[in-house]
Amino acid sequence: MHNAPPIAELRSRLAAFREILQRRKLPAALITDERNVRYLSGFSGSESALLITPQRKFLLTDFRYMEEARRDLPGWAVVVEKLARPDAEGKEKELIPRALMEKAGHLARRLRLRHLVVEADDMRVLDMRALRRAARNTRVEPKDKLLCELRLVKSAWEVRQIEKALRIQEQCLLELFESLGEGLTEREAAARLRYLMVRAGADDQAFEPLFQVGSHSSLPHGRTTRRLLRADAIVLVDWGAKKAGYHSDLTRTFFLGTIPGRLRKIHDLVVEAQRRAINRIAPGVPFTEVDAAAREVIRKGGYGKAFGHSTGHGLGLDVHEPPALSAREKGEFLAGMVVAVEPGVYCPGLGGVRIEDDVLVTPHGHRVLSRLKRSLRWNAL
Amino acid sequence: MHNAPPIAELRSRLAAFREILQRRKLPAALITDERNVRYLSGFSGSESALLITPQRKFLLTDFRYMEEARRDLPGWAVVVEKLARPDAEGKEKELIPRALMEKAGHLARRLRLRHLVVEADDMRVLDMRALRRAARNTRVEPKDKLLCELRLVKSAWEVRQIEKALRIQEQCLLELFESLGEGLTEREAAARLRYLMVRAGADDQAFEPLFQVGSHSSLPHGRTTRRLLRADAIVLVDWGAKKAGYHSDLTRTFFLGTIPGRLRKIHDLVVEAQRRAINRIAPGVPFTEVDAAAREVIRKGGYGKAFGHSTGHGLGLDVHEPPALSAREKGEFLAGMVVAVEPGVYCPGLGGVRIEDDVLVTPHGHRVLSRLKRSLRWNAL
Repeated sequence: MHNAPPIAELRSRLAAFREILQRRKLPAALITDERNVRYLSGFSGSESALLITPQRKFLLTDFRYMEEARRDLPGWAVVVEKLARPDAEGKEKELIPRALMEKAGHLARRLRLRHLVVEADDMRVLDMRALRRAARNTRVEPKDKLLCELRLVKSAWEVRQIEKALRIQEQCLLELFESLGEGLTEREAAARLRYLMVRAGADDQAFEPLFQVGSHSSLPHGRTTRRLLRADAIVLVDWGAKKAGYHSDLTRTFFLGTIPGRLRKIHDLVVEAQRRAINRIAPGVPFTEVDAAAREVIRKGGYGKAFGHSTGHGLGLDVHEPPALSAREKGEFLAGMVVAVEPGVYCPGLGGVRIEDDVLVTPHGHRVLSRLKRSLRWNAL
Repeated sequence: MHNAPPIAELRSRLAAFREILQRRKLPAALITDERNVRYLSGFSGSESALLITPQRKFLLTDFRYMEEARRDLPGWAVVVEKLARPDAEGKEKELIPRALMEKAGHLARRLRLRHLVVEADDMRVLDMRALRRAARNTRVEPKDKLLCELRLVKSAWEVRQIEKALRIQEQCLLELFESLGEGLTEREAAARLRYLMVRAGADDQAFEPLFQVGSHSSLPHGRTTRRLLRADAIVLVDWGAKKAGYHSDLTRTFFLGTIPGRLRKIHDLVVEAQRRAINRIAPGVPFTEVDAAAREVIRKGGYGKAFGHSTGHGLGLDVHEPPALSAREKGEFLAGMVVAVEPGVYCPGLGGVRIEDDVLVTPHGHRVLSRLKRSLRWNAL
């Protein structure tokens, strides 16, 4: 199977998930979140589902993935939904999930399940209705975050995928910069970066890159625009790659031309805040301490109010998953967690600076997985 | 507002939607589907919602889009969710919808709504729960396809957006072909096509293009692979562009080298089937007749069983929306509908041929909106 975890690892993930179900006295689970389906089975097709009981395991999918699923998932019973009215490309997003949930409901009935939990944070109201109707006497109960705990700590194989994604995104930003010049729009730079990353072997970009030029860099902003890259403008790039389903996530802020003194100072401050935050990362340390470490540096530098977001977040099959590195998050670091650390200072009218790197929690401390320099001059990265 | 419909058109869409609500005796609706939010308000930010009553209209959004919404949506009351714990990039997909639904629930309470309908085909079970809790005494009822009827018939402005998307995707395929050669993988060709379309002014690709080489072209297949383009191989490309939210969708099947006689005959057959199907399109004609017209040609040619999918589908803010051009779809064409017509013949081991074009239903017949030739030789397209 392309880009799938080793079979032994898949087995131990499934065993751990069954233990969680048993501990919570849940007899069976229907997994519909694409990332969770992939985590437990290695199967990466879209619009598929897993039905897991203490003894049995089923993959439910449609005609598009039938051959692939039967070939690549030994040990799983593959249930195929042959749509009565498929379209040519499998673009019918309404039909497939609902038909699949009917199939899942029939399966629950056939297995005589009394109780089935489903993912409340993934399933649509419509699909839930179809499932309940088809399952009849099975009690269908929505639950949040069924796999959250399991996915928090990464295996060596998972860390390697994140590292592969990092090498791709780092190399491709440098490659982009070679052809970077005035007259390129934010949108075009972002589109070119995506193309380079896919060509270099990424599944895709991890998310729509933020490519924010000039005073735009001060906004936590929803979209990339048609603004032109210009000399003497600050450029904030927040981008990532995806490899075997795993995400990497970096931010760099740099200048094409001369650097105003105030922004240089802010950049130094953000670099220092990030360094202090990263240095606190080790098993047993509360998440809040890392957030506080970054915040203290920025506050002392006089920009406390200009740092309005959390210091970071977990990374994995989601580009943004627990833990949050914020002042409110409960809990502490465990060896094997991977987090992005991304303090920032944003001054409306002037510009914003954010620096983001990805860090692995090791048994005795941490290791920074990203390698790209934090320089304010792009040609010194 | 960038790429938004004319204000008069937005007004008449909203008036028509309120009429539908009134006719169905529904006092208020919460619209969460991104495409429907855009359709009714022109607002294209993600994770936002509209609350619409007979007299009032609210846009609910978060801090990322605050300025944009207030500037671009005169007449709408903008309700902003300021997340207590935002992340730097707005990548927190769990938090935003739930927080927004709580906000919507509080608003429903404040407005003393007795009854509120929501979109069952969009809303997650989790968000529904948050909404119900916050709305308290308001009865929250999920409904399917609230805007389906309204979106079926396109305005002149909407047709123009689809035509713009078509010009982009046609021009970019030709551009891709100039640099096309052996040694390029399906994946890389697809990534390059996307880049070219964004550079040419598309919002994005309409969907992940299918770029299927050789015998792969015979599968209704879930993904593009690392197969190499080679001379003497058939290449099926199913691709589209998106402009101002509207999708275009074409398929061409062609050869880089010499063409085996049997595939040439199949190609002629599919072209003829498509021609007959398109010629039937006019107001008042049942959808089933168009499907039957294509199917009859292919059956008489001896390939009836090799055409296993429907003949086409509607196009608009979704790349795949009603009507389906299939043997089961009820109803008939109305002037203003836009449909993709895409018969195909798939022979395992040999290869598949599909041809797809986009067609507008006019008051007295139809007009084919796409212009790219249907040649089997790419350099004659």
